[in-house]
Amino acid sequence: MERVHSQVVQDAVMRKLEERGVKLQAVADIVYEMQRHYYPHLQMDTCLQSVIAVLEKRELQHAILVGIELDVLCEKQLLSEPLQTIIAQDEGLFGCDETLALGSVFGYGSIAVTTFGHLDKQKVGIIRQLDTKAGGKVHTFLDDLVCSIAASASSRIAHKLRDQEEAEAAVRGLHLADLPGEANDTSASGVDEVIPMQVADGTETAAS
Amino acid sequence: MERVHSQVVQDAVMRKLEERGVKLQAVADIVYEMQRHYYPHLQMDTCLQSVIAVLEKRELQHAILVGIELDVLCEKQLLSEPLQTIIAQDEGLFGCDETLALGSVFGYGSIAVTTFGHLDKQKVGIIRQLDTKAGGKVHTFLDDLVCSIAASASSRIAHKLRDQEEAEAAVRGLHLADLPGEANDTSASGVDEVIPMQVADGTETAAS
Amino acid sequence: MERVHSQVVQDAVMRKLEERGVKLQAVADIVYEMQRHYYPHLQMDTCLQSVIAVLEKRELQHAILVGIELDVLCEKQLLSEPLQTIIAQDEGLFGCDETLALGSVFGYGSIAVTTFGHLDKQKVGIIRQLDTKAGGKVHTFLDDLVCSIAASASSRIAHKLRDQEEAEAAVRGLHLADLPGEANDTSASGVDEVIPMQVADGTETAAS
Amino acid sequence: MERVHSQVVQDAVMRKLEERGVKLQAVADIVYEMQRHYYPHLQMDTCLQSVIAVLEKRELQHAILVGIELDVLCEKQLLSEPLQTIIAQDEGLFGCDETLALGSVFGYGSIAVTTFGHLDKQKVGIIRQLDTKAGGKVHTFLDDLVCSIAASASSRIAHKLRDQEEAEAAVRGLHLADLPGEANDTSASGVDEVIPMQVADGTETAAS
Repeated sequence: MERVHSQVVQDAVMRKLEERGVKLQAVADIVYEMQRHYYPHLQMDTCLQSVIAVLEKRELQHAILVGIELDVLCEKQLLSEPLQTIIAQDEGLFGCDETLALGSVFGYGSIAVTTFGHLDKQKVGIIRQLDTKAGGKVHTFLDDLVCSIAASASSRIAHKLRDQEEAEAAVRGLHLADLPGEANDTSASGVDEVIPMQVADGTETAAS
Repeated sequence: MERVHSQVVQDAVMRKLEERGVKLQAVADIVYEMQRHYYPHLQMDTCLQSVIAVLEKRELQHAILVGIELDVLCEKQLLSEPLQTIIAQDEGLFGCDETLALGSVFGYGSIAVTTFGHLDKQKVGIIRQLDTKAGGKVHTFLDDLVCSIAASASSRIAHKLRDQEEAEAAVRGLHLADLPGEANDTSASGVDEVIPMQVADGTETAAS
Repeated sequence: MERVHSQVVQDAVMRKLEERGVKLQAVADIVYEMQRHYYPHLQMDTCLQSVIAVLEKRELQHAILVGIELDVLCEKQLLSEPLQTIIAQDEGLFGCDETLALGSVFGYGSIAVTTFGHLDKQKVGIIRQLDTKAGGKVHTFLDDLVCSIAASASSRIAHKLRDQEEAEAAVRGLHLADLPGEANDTSASGVDEVIPMQVADGTETAAS
Repeated sequence: MERVHSQVVQDAVMRKLEERGVKLQAVADIVYEMQRHYYPHLQMDTCLQSVIAVLEKRELQHAILVGIELDVLCEKQLLSEPLQTIIAQDEGLFGCDETLALGSVFGYGSIAVTTFGHLDKQKVGIIRQLDTKAGGKVHTFLDDLVCSIAASASSRIAHKLRDQEEAEAAVRGLHLADLPGEANDTSASGVDEVIPMQVADGTETAAS
C-alpha cells in the first residue's frame, strides 16, 4: 500500500471544505474581525493568505479530514449507536470535536488556544451558520474545525506582524547597513514572506 | 528535606489568593454568569462550592503558587532581564501565563478549555480588574489563573448537573427500587455530593 | 431525539473494548508495571479498580467510542480516500489518534501526559499486540486509547496514594482527635475510597 | 517601557542555556539518538540545525526564560514557601515544569508530545545529568525544557524529511517539468531549506 502524497491530502482538504460549504473567504472574514482592532491597517488579503498558510499544515489537514468524515457518516446514519445519536445532537458534554480541533491550534501558541475558545463560544459568521443545523446537515466537528483554522490564522498574523515591525524598525534604524536580511534571521514565527499593509492614505506599502 | 503536606499547599493557595485581592465570591460570580443561561435555577452557592472544589486539585494549586510567585517577584523587580520587562508589560505574544493556567483547565474537559479562552478574551468581572494593572501591581499570571479557576468550576457544574438530571430521572422512573445510589455509581463526573437547585417557585430542592 | 444516558455510553464502551480484544486486566497489567517501582506494595486489584474508575469519565468514554468507530469503519473500507489509506497505514505523521487520546489524559495531570508519551513509544503488553496489525485488523486509534486509559489510571494511583499516605500520617500523628475525616475533606485527587495495600509481611492493610 | 526585541530574547535564551550547562550539541545528540533508527542517513549537523531552529520560536524561548528563572531563584532560596521546598525537591506530583515545557512542544504536533513524554521518562544524556541534582543545583524546570527542545527538534526533522522525500520523488518522476518549486509550495512543515543527507556510499546529496 503506497503512502499518500501530501499534495493529495491538501487537495482533499480543499475539496471537502468546499463541499461542506466552507469558503476560505468566510474564514478570512473571521480572522479580519479578530485582528483588525489590533492592526488598523490590516488587509483582508493578508487574512486570506494566512488561512491558506495554516491549511498547509499536516496536523490541521488530518483533523479536517477526520472531522468532516464523521460529520458526513453521521448525516448518512452510518455510525453505530450511541455515537450516532451523540454526534447528531452535538451534545454539550461531547468534547471530541473540540479536542480534535484543539490539537492543531496548539501549533500556533497559547494565544491561538484562547482565540479558539473565544470563537467557539461566540460563534461568529460562518461558524454560527454551521452551528444552526438546518436541513438535516451535521456540522458537529466542522464548526470547531473552522474555529481552529481561524484561530490559527489569527495567531499566525500576530506573530508575523511582530517580526515585521521589528524588521522595519531595524531598517529605519542606525544599523541599516549591518542588517541585511535580519528580518528573516531573527524571525520568531518562522515565516519569511512580507505582509503587505495598507497605510492610512490608502496606498499600499510593504514591510521593507 | 521533608515533603510538603497537601494541607500546607492548600492553605498557602487560599492565603495568597486573598493577599492578591481575589475573593472566591468574585470567581463564583463569573461561574454564575457563565452557567445561568444553561441552568435557570442555578444557585450562587453551588457556584461558590464548585470554585472551592476545583481549588482542592493539586495541578491548579501548584499553578497558582507558581504564577503568583512570578507576579510578586516582578512587582519587586527581582526577575532578571529580559523576563522582568516581558512580564511587567504582560505583552501580547508572551504565552507562559496562558500555558500554565491551561494545564489545570484540561482536567475539566475540552469544554473547560473553550470557556477558558472565552473568559481570557472577554475579561469579565474580577478578571478585568486584575488586567487593568493599576497602582504598580503585576497580575500577568493571576488574571489567567482566575480564568482557569472559573472555567474549571463552570465545566464541573455542567458535568455534575448532567449526572444529577440522570439520577433524578432514574428516581422518577420505573427502576426506582432497583437503583439505590446509582447516581453515584455511574457518576461520570466523579463527584458525589448533590447540588441543591432552586426550583421555579423559590423553594429549594435536592436531587434525590 | 432523546439524549443518550450516561449508563448507555458506559455500557457501549465496555462492550466495544471487549469486542476489540482489550481486556481490562491487560490494561491493569500495564498500570501495575508502570507503578510498582514507586509503590512496592501496590496490588494488582488496585490497578484494575483504577482502570475501571477512569473508564467512568465522559471525556475518555467519548474518545473511545470515536476512535473504535474509525478503526472499525476503516477495517470495513467504509472511509473515503485519502483518509481510508492514511488510517489503514497508521502512518507516522498522522497525529489525530494521539490527539484524541491525549484529550482525556490531560484530565489526570501533566504526569499522565508524560506517561502517555512513554507508553506510546514503548508499546508494552496489549499496546504492542494492538500495534502489530495482524489479520487485517486496524487499531490505529485503539492502541493510543489504551495508552490513554493506562496513563490516566497510573496517574490516578499516584495522586490517590499521596492522599492516603498523608491521611495515614495524620491518623498516626498528634492531631488524631482533631481530624475526623480530614483525609477526605482535603483530598487533592478528589477520590474518596481507600486503596488496600499489601504490607511487607504479606498481610493486607487499609489506610485508616 | 519599551518592548523587548526578539533578538534580545533570543540572545538571553542562548546565554542562559550556556550558563546552566546545556550545550546545544548535547541536545542534538538526543535528537540524533531519537531519529537515527527511522533515518539511517541522518547527519548530526541536521539535528543541531533543527535544535537551533526550534530555539527561534517565541513560545519555547519564553518558557525557557521562565523555567530557568524559577530554577535559579530556587537555588538562591529566594522563592516563598511552600513553593521553595516543592521546586527544590522536584517532587513527583508537581507538574508545572511539565506543563510549561509541554506548551511549546504542542507546536510540533502530537508526535512531538509523545516524544516529550518518552524523553521525560527515559531521561537520556544531558537530561539525566540535569536530573541528578548534584552540587546544590536545581534543574526542576530545565530538564523538562531540554526534553521539550529535543522533542520539538525531532518532530521537526520527521516532518521536514517527509516533505523532502516527496520533493525528491517529484524530481525523479514523470512530472518533472510540471513541478517547478512544488516542494516549497506544498511544504506541509512550513520549512523551506533542504536537509543534507549522507547517502549510503558516504557522499553527500541534497534533496533536489
